[in-house]
Amino acid sequence: METIKIAGFGGSLRKESYSRYLLENAVGLMPENSKLEILDIKNFPLMNQDEENNYPENVKKFKRQIKESDGVLMVTPEYNYSIPGYLKNVLDVASRPYGDNPFNGKPVAIMSSSIGMLGGSRAQYHLRQVCVFLDMIPVNTPEVFLTFAQDKFDEKGKLKDEMTAKFAGQLLQNLVNLARQLKK
Amino acid sequence: METIKIAGFGGSLRKESYSRYLLENAVGLMPENSKLEILDIKNFPLMNQDEENNYPENVKKFKRQIKESDGVLMVTPEYNYSIPGYLKNVLDVASRPYGDNPFNGKPVAIMSSSIGMLGGSRAQYHLRQVCVFLDMIPVNTPEVFLTFAQDKFDEKGKLKDEMTAKFAGQLLQNLVNLARQLKK
Amino acid sequence: METIKIAGFGGSLRKESYSRYLLENAVGLMPENSKLEILDIKNFPLMNQDEENNYPENVKKFKRQIKESDGVLMVTPEYNYSIPGYLKNVLDVASRPYGDNPFNGKPVAIMSSSIGMLGGSRAQYHLRQVCVFLDMIPVNTPEVFLTFAQDKFDEKGKLKDEMTAKFAGQLLQNLVNLARQLKK
Amino acid sequence: METIKIAGFGGSLRKESYSRYLLENAVGLMPENSKLEILDIKNFPLMNQDEENNYPENVKKFKRQIKESDGVLMVTPEYNYSIPGYLKNVLDVASRPYGDNPFNGKPVAIMSSSIGMLGGSRAQYHLRQVCVFLDMIPVNTPEVFLTFAQDKFDEKGKLKDEMTAKFAGQLLQNLVNLARQLKK
Repeated sequence: METIKIAGFGGSLRKESYSRYLLENAVGLMPENSKLEILDIKNFPLMNQDEENNYPENVKKFKRQIKESDGVLMVTPEYNYSIPGYLKNVLDVASRPYGDNPFNGKPVAIMSSSIGMLGGSRAQYHLRQVCVFLDMIPVNTPEVFLTFAQDKFDEKGKLKDEMTAKFAGQLLQNLVNLARQLKK
Repeated sequence: METIKIAGFGGSLRKESYSRYLLENAVGLMPENSKLEILDIKNFPLMNQDEENNYPENVKKFKRQIKESDGVLMVTPEYNYSIPGYLKNVLDVASRPYGDNPFNGKPVAIMSSSIGMLGGSRAQYHLRQVCVFLDMIPVNTPEVFLTFAQDKFDEKGKLKDEMTAKFAGQLLQNLVNLARQLKK
Repeated sequence: METIKIAGFGGSLRKESYSRYLLENAVGLMPENSKLEILDIKNFPLMNQDEENNYPENVKKFKRQIKESDGVLMVTPEYNYSIPGYLKNVLDVASRPYGDNPFNGKPVAIMSSSIGMLGGSRAQYHLRQVCVFLDMIPVNTPEVFLTFAQDKFDEKGKLKDEMTAKFAGQLLQNLVNLARQLKK
Repeated sequence: METIKIAGFGGSLRKESYSRYLLENAVGLMPENSKLEILDIKNFPLMNQDEENNYPENVKKFKRQIKESDGVLMVTPEYNYSIPGYLKNVLDVASRPYGDNPFNGKPVAIMSSSIGMLGGSRAQYHLRQVCVFLDMIPVNTPEVFLTFAQDKFDEKGKLKDEMTAKFAGQLLQNLVNLARQLKK
């Protein structure tokens, strides 16, 4: 059975980012015959169409890694009831220039977290609309909304909430299954 | 009659930005006894909660200008069916830290532009959801969606489309009226 | 001080509707010098533009009651991640024909409920977009999402959750305040 | 090559419904080895959970037809910036009771129409969110937004706009391709 390669990114930029913890924990929740590689999204330039033909090396590398993947995992916090600007900027930069969108046709799973009771769900639905334009195929179930994120990790950033681990594992399984089906 | 002060920002970062042209043209479309000041959104740091108590001077100035305004005008392009990342980042940065949100209670008008047929409407509806969290009061009508933006300005960036000028002027009038009503 | 009249409607059509319970409990949570009247939304015809000039008496009465109100309260369950069809139909029917929209300019508060953990929030954000077209002025805070609704009422349908009562009461206070401000 | 069966429904309830015209024209735009059957959505009861185990025969038939299909086409007008209530009600009724959702796993294409410049796009994005819960797989491209619908049909309801016919045909082709891929 061929190994399915998933490219994952997200998290916020601060040190103790719950969404980055969630992303990092996903590595250990991947099903057999699959692999999650976490991509670096630091130091992306701000999207500027005048410069989209001269991207720096880190953007080129990110795009290459997305292209070579069989599927994508995005993990997002929620800022102001939507996708964080810096994370949306990663998508804006990497999806350009026109005709060179590496996300095109990729299956995608989305997870989110927040310190409140809605778990970043509002960011997820906005992100799903973005995925229409990027021409991605989002997995529908289970939706992973990590609520009250501050209570769900130990001091080393390890996920200690079993329900979240179970749902996240199932979502990753469904992503890998979809990626396998689309490869045929 | 007291002069109503509107703080406007937006546009994309490239040189020939249609949404920035639209923002700049709004200055000349303001009703009597009102004034639009365009705020600088360049060089904002990326939102990082670890650093939100040490904002650079340009962010502090932006926040001060929003606070001192009677209302806000946002002009946005649409990237990937949503708000551009760099513009969302301006809102993310300026609305923090918790308890120091300068947008709170301000009336706001939104305009958008695109080179396609939907005029950035998808970005506007996402932005309206953001305004719920920012606790702003958006003007409902008329909605200004500048479609096929590449055909609507002369070579100096002057708006030459009369319909857009009419609707934009009406929206600004309604914003100023609402700001005046809320000041009472 | 003049009494502010709020017109409320919503709930699902089944007997033990948690959202209708919530609506009914709102009567007792209204602030001083205000009054909530619950409108009947049963037996609305399905929206059909061919017949929008011949509405039955119950629709005419509903529209009259909205017009005579100072503000509106909508309480909605969530079906399939959006506004229930029968409730959206009430809005579709009552907002027509063109030029006779009784919701126009009214302040509005929204509450929602669900038996799950998101409390109907997805329905609320769709409803807020509808309110843009209806030209209503939604109250922003506090948002009332009644989660796990099956646990929040006694056997007579009385709200026994103090947090929900507190937030709902505050939302109604803010609605009445806004209605009073807009009457000036 | 096996014939792919698509079940289509939608349109408004009035006689001269542009969205129903669009649905009817889709029959002639289907690719080879595929067939579009238009389902009857008249006289659906309003969703009421107390009665969801006793649906009338027309609802049972509709659900059976969806189940037997290889994919779904929904054509929607836009009412008040969202999905029309009567059409949402069809989805609410047919997707219940819990555990008997015939839409589950089906690929779906969406078209919309309006007499304005946005072509029903706002309804489409709300409908896409509904499809997450229904666990459907929406086709991403091309999006078919029929703008200024009153100008696009002859007096017999035949689509006379070539661009719309081209895009609608391409969308149906993509739906059939996806349905074929998922059958494997």
